Amino acid sequence: MSNSTINGVPAEQMKDTVEAIKDRPSLARCNFRLQNRWMGGAHNRSTITSFEAAGETHVSDQRPFVVGNGEHPVLFGKDEAPNPVENLLHALAGCLTTTLVYRAAALGIHLEQVETRLDGDLDLRGLLGLSGEVRKGYEKIRVRFRIKGDASEEELRALVEHAQAHSPVYDVVRNPVPVEVKVERAVSTAPAAC
Amino acid sequence: MSNSTINGVPAEQMKDTVEAIKDRPSLARCNFRLQNRWMGGAHNRSTITSFEAAGETHVSDQRPFVVGNGEHPVLFGKDEAPNPVENLLHALAGCLTTTLVYRAAALGIHLEQVETRLDGDLDLRGLLGLSGEVRKGYEKIRVRFRIKGDASEEELRALVEHAQAHSPVYDVVRNPVPVEVKVERAVSTAPAAC
Repeated sequence: MSNSTINGVPAEQMKDTVEAIKDRPSLARCNFRLQNRWMGGAHNRSTITSFEAAGETHVSDQRPFVVGNGEHPVLFGKDEAPNPVENLLHALAGCLTTTLVYRAAALGIHLEQVETRLDGDLDLRGLLGLSGEVRKGYEKIRVRFRIKGDASEEELRALVEHAQAHSPVYDVVRNPVPVEVKVERAVSTAPAAC
Repeated sequence: MSNSTINGVPAEQMKDTVEAIKDRPSLARCNFRLQNRWMGGAHNRSTITSFEAAGETHVSDQRPFVVGNGEHPVLFGKDEAPNPVENLLHALAGCLTTTLVYRAAALGIHLEQVETRLDGDLDLRGLLGLSGEVRKGYEKIRVRFRIKGDASEEELRALVEHAQAHSPVYDVVRNPVPVEVKVERAVSTAPAAC
């Protein structure tokens, strides 16, 4: 059974990991990170090289990943990449889907198709500082799952509920996360602009 | 002045947009969206085609964007792309940076460099359902700005504070967002797995 996969997920490896973490909870500690560099205007790029899990640093042949943020011209950019609030929806869609797929694998439920459509309402007056009553971020996000699999409608609903209850990005969107921000000024080496 | 840019940002266009929104607040309403499709295992892809702003649908020659989520093999995937919590940090980095750069452009502050390093602590026991005391998402996120620009240290700090106060993704991370989730079961067309 050690090489068995369900839905492309190594279910036996996942089970072994769960048992190992039960024995040593510190194995579950992860630290994810990236560096982001401004490219000009609304364009910036993140380089994602490694992460820590179970006290070890993990890389891979596919890393570093380099991913971008941009803004459409109506939002003052050149549309080099999805914008940050689109990338946020992407993270949320992916996290709900993977949490659901992993749970299905753990339960032995074979899936054929998982599709989501996400959308979110945002009022630019928050970002632009034009109203104290309008929030800056999404006012509401909608997620629509469409799933095919070897399971009853009730089982599929339970998978979605499990994903909502366990997805890390869903938790971040639904609940406050502490963020510590520090700033360091690098001394300019270029001549003064004027 | 209509073509003037500061930091690559069309500052005059931005100013005109602010004035237009002051006159007609409904112009500020946006809806961002995407479709995500499971590719197998921990791999899924989002297709980002258009968004609504000011009552109009916006596309561009660069769209649709197709972006991925994966997971590293130690997290049961094949590392086809950054994972969802890495993509979340990417969205946060980009949103803080763009909010800061736009503010600098509005104030006439010329920037040379904006770099951020982000990291976040996450305990897998939340995702895996192994502890009710551990949250599923990030327990804490750290952001380190390094900025070069034609401004005093105090002005640069004020830019970062402005970004924290106005960035949409920062708001989503710091404060709860309502999420509506619906699920539709598509009838399987394939033979039963057993």
